[in-house]
Amino acid sequence: MDQMSPDNINGVILAVSSSIFIGSSFIIKKKGLKKAGASGVRAGEGGYGYLKEPWWWAGMITMIVGEVANFAAYAFAPAILVTPLGALSIIFSAVLAHFILKEKLHMFGILGCILCVVGSTTIVLHAPHEQKIESVKQIWQLAIEPGFLVYSAVIVIVVAILIFYYEPRYGKTHMIVYVGICSLMGSLTVMSVKAVAIAIKLTFSGTNQFKYFNTWIFILVVATCCILQINYLNKALDTFNTAVISPVYYVMFTTFTIIASMIMFKDWASQSGLKIATELCGFVTILSGTFLLHKTKDMGNSASGRGSISMPTRDTPVFTNSGSGRSSSSDKVAS
Amino acid sequence: MDQMSPDNINGVILAVSSSIFIGSSFIIKKKGLKKAGASGVRAGEGGYGYLKEPWWWAGMITMIVGEVANFAAYAFAPAILVTPLGALSIIFSAVLAHFILKEKLHMFGILGCILCVVGSTTIVLHAPHEQKIESVKQIWQLAIEPGFLVYSAVIVIVVAILIFYYEPRYGKTHMIVYVGICSLMGSLTVMSVKAVAIAIKLTFSGTNQFKYFNTWIFILVVATCCILQINYLNKALDTFNTAVISPVYYVMFTTFTIIASMIMFKDWASQSGLKIATELCGFVTILSGTFLLHKTKDMGNSASGRGSISMPTRDTPVFTNSGSGRSSSSDKVAS
Repeated sequence: MDQMSPDNINGVILAVSSSIFIGSSFIIKKKGLKKAGASGVRAGEGGYGYLKEPWWWAGMITMIVGEVANFAAYAFAPAILVTPLGALSIIFSAVLAHFILKEKLHMFGILGCILCVVGSTTIVLHAPHEQKIESVKQIWQLAIEPGFLVYSAVIVIVVAILIFYYEPRYGKTHMIVYVGICSLMGSLTVMSVKAVAIAIKLTFSGTNQFKYFNTWIFILVVATCCILQINYLNKALDTFNTAVISPVYYVMFTTFTIIASMIMFKDWASQSGLKIATELCGFVTILSGTFLLHKTKDMGNSASGRGSISMPTRDTPVFTNSGSGRSSSSDKVAS
Repeated sequence: MDQMSPDNINGVILAVSSSIFIGSSFIIKKKGLKKAGASGVRAGEGGYGYLKEPWWWAGMITMIVGEVANFAAYAFAPAILVTPLGALSIIFSAVLAHFILKEKLHMFGILGCILCVVGSTTIVLHAPHEQKIESVKQIWQLAIEPGFLVYSAVIVIVVAILIFYYEPRYGKTHMIVYVGICSLMGSLTVMSVKAVAIAIKLTFSGTNQFKYFNTWIFILVVATCCILQINYLNKALDTFNTAVISPVYYVMFTTFTIIASMIMFKDWASQSGLKIATELCGFVTILSGTFLLHKTKDMGNSASGRGSISMPTRDTPVFTNSGSGRSSSSDKVAS
């Protein structure tokens, strides 16, 4: 049966609107930051004027709405469908920055947008159908199966080694340490977010899931993992350039989340080799698009700008792109 | 039935080996040209020393073998499967140039290779099955149906306008004129090549097709279109930079060929919307990969080379790529 399931359709609508909100929240917040910077100390130099800026608050609210939609998407569709669609937020923010903030999109940046859309379409068309989940206890059973227990144990051990051994020695010089911690933890965050989102959905449809201790454990896991992620993502964004962090973080976060989802929810068990191969092609295409978008984000706006590509022929229009603001850490946590 | 048909598998094997031969023929010929250039007048300055170079002849033979394999591929699989796989020859030549000629592949060039492979995989997995063709007269019936007659008439008219009106005025300044002529004619070439290839295949399997006048008309069309294409492709390559011509030519040539095949062989009639959409995603991915490969082909080898991308961070390894030789016109004709 080749058609998309109603649940998957809901999941895609929520995931795409989440990307629209999160993508545009960058721009709205930046407008607020610019306005605050014009009339006082800039945020970058420790100023807090933006807190009085309506634009900045509108940006925050837009981002929160985006995160809620993303959270809800996990209640309807499998992670392999929702997580990669997070890349679309990068497109929306790049395209809006191009028109509203006049931060011209580089030729390869445009290509990156196209690739993200094409890759997302391929994944959406071939994503597995979500298995019917009637209670949070069913998810709990999936979580305590040997396969996923081993995965979780490996994650916790690796993260502990990264935090206690590698971070003090290499944290400041090798971004893989911080990004590794965030993306490994992120895969557990998404699995628990999915459990909590389903619990809320079931509760709203009349079967209260909050009377089970399992729901509260999932909430605890979400909270713990989120705090760890935000902490180390802040360190990463503070130490390294966003244009390098974002693509690597997106790739690792999405990859580990899909692996976790495959082990826990056995997404691919019901799919043919052809479908799985097609989804992987879509996934690599999105990764390439994201990589291109981020790699060309920090190029000078003018043709003579540092690192801009001046083509040898007259016919090629030269769009180049100046660095847009840092992507705020919190929005990268579970999207 | 999701599996690939045996004919499609044969078609893919032939198309991929064709790309390997054509791709490597660039490198082998270039070795011959370099050797000839070292001991006499270079080909670029009118020297013909390369004709005495065994390497150059080995390159020519490799290319001819590649073209024959490409020709045969059309006898087994639909154009929408075979034509886009032509992009793989660009990868093979780029990768071989990277290792053998020390023409370093740019970081984005590597991304371009990945995209071409991923896009090709998606198309191969979802290409329509070839309809059973028992005789060249069957193809003739397809060719004289109203839809394809209208398409052919439009092509001939547009090409005539381009040649008699636009070429004298804008040929030297707007590459779209030459590339337009080549790609429009190319779509008719491929349809006739397919007819002739099938006629040969059927003849080999015992039912002689050369007793029908239809076969000879298809051969005549192949010859006429090929001569026109080679003529205007030479003009294009002589006037404009290969890095600009090749991607545009590949995009237009492949697009018109797929349209022609859709009209004549009704490839997509038996396919679901989901399959067609997936194939288009694969096609756009290959186009992007080819675009990236060509756009970064002419960048200086050293980091300070004109137009090279110097990333703002220490972690990003900088590979840059110097211009490889012109792609010889003949190999671009029907691949």
